[in-house]
Amino acid sequence: MPRRPTLEFWFEFASTYSYLAAMRIEALAEEAGVGLRWRPFLLGPIFAGQGWTTSPFNLFPAKGRAMWRDLAREAARLGLPPIRRPADFPQNSLAAARVASYGADQPWIGPFTRAVFEAEFARGQSIAEPAAISALLNGLGLDGPAILKAATSEPNKSRLRVVGEEAKSRGIFGAPTFLTEDGELFWGNDRLEQALAWATGDRPPGLA
Amino acid sequence: MPRRPTLEFWFEFASTYSYLAAMRIEALAEEAGVGLRWRPFLLGPIFAGQGWTTSPFNLFPAKGRAMWRDLAREAARLGLPPIRRPADFPQNSLAAARVASYGADQPWIGPFTRAVFEAEFARGQSIAEPAAISALLNGLGLDGPAILKAATSEPNKSRLRVVGEEAKSRGIFGAPTFLTEDGELFWGNDRLEQALAWATGDRPPGLA
Repeated sequence: MPRRPTLEFWFEFASTYSYLAAMRIEALAEEAGVGLRWRPFLLGPIFAGQGWTTSPFNLFPAKGRAMWRDLAREAARLGLPPIRRPADFPQNSLAAARVASYGADQPWIGPFTRAVFEAEFARGQSIAEPAAISALLNGLGLDGPAILKAATSEPNKSRLRVVGEEAKSRGIFGAPTFLTEDGELFWGNDRLEQALAWATGDRPPGLA
Repeated sequence: MPRRPTLEFWFEFASTYSYLAAMRIEALAEEAGVGLRWRPFLLGPIFAGQGWTTSPFNLFPAKGRAMWRDLAREAARLGLPPIRRPADFPQNSLAAARVASYGADQPWIGPFTRAVFEAEFARGQSIAEPAAISALLNGLGLDGPAILKAATSEPNKSRLRVVGEEAKSRGIFGAPTFLTEDGELFWGNDRLEQALAWATGDRPPGLA
């Protein structure tokens, strides 16, 4: 049986286009015969390195307005519920990222990731408070308080910092980003299908 | 006979993704039954308003590296020649933009626009010098020197400045941008097909 290829899915819980990718990626990867590695990370330190103190969608208002409208169109096109914008944007995603980092290889990583994003962008809820994350875990039949406690342990907190350094060193500058085993980087929800195709060996003609 | 809808195509000659859109848009618009309004403009003043002195692809090196690789993949996917990167990026596009602004409603605007972009990104040539633009016009069987002279007349120069103000006032922050008659804004070559569909009245469910 041939070895199943793997695609890394780098995502940030505060990121609108990470939401669109997260809602689709598990089904599309399954269909393509590609395994997934879930790579939650924080964009904040990367943006800070570019001199940004918040999302570019806030720093550049015209870009932000266009993004929210595009997101509404894309959600409709992809069959997702209408976007509900959380009161604060970007949301503080630290608690969610710590839990996802802790559970990245667990069977609940997909359902948990989707549950957080749905709360944030389909119901417009805050995901900033650890209690909100704990409640979402409970809603999946998991032990929210226990997972939250493990996720905020020192080793897991430092793991998330190390992952942030890895993101930088591998050329990641935004989210979502897809990385193939041979190091091909695809940025943005619009490239999900191409990233999966690349992972299976299906490449545009003339490209190595 | 029903009225033919029109789509505005805002593009910048220095912009890599404007290149991808420019090479495809005339054929796709024809197929969709959509008329085109060619809107050449300069991104420089808009970027300057965001505090940028050059392309974001230069300001943010990781983003730039990913863009050039994505561009190579997209060119291959769209059946365009391999990308050849001009020595300077972004190219000074003033001369080309003035000519395109002067000829925006002329039958040669499509062939001229493609000729400039092909020189720049398929042959890696400079498009900065007026002589290069004149030679491209000559190559299309036009009177390069005469058109260049008209394009650098004061009324045409000031027209291009006014267009820049219009771009800002209509929410344009990058290129390419597609604007429908009802004011829907689509940013990026990836949205060309959707912009054309929207122009013909084909919209995602649930969106006005």
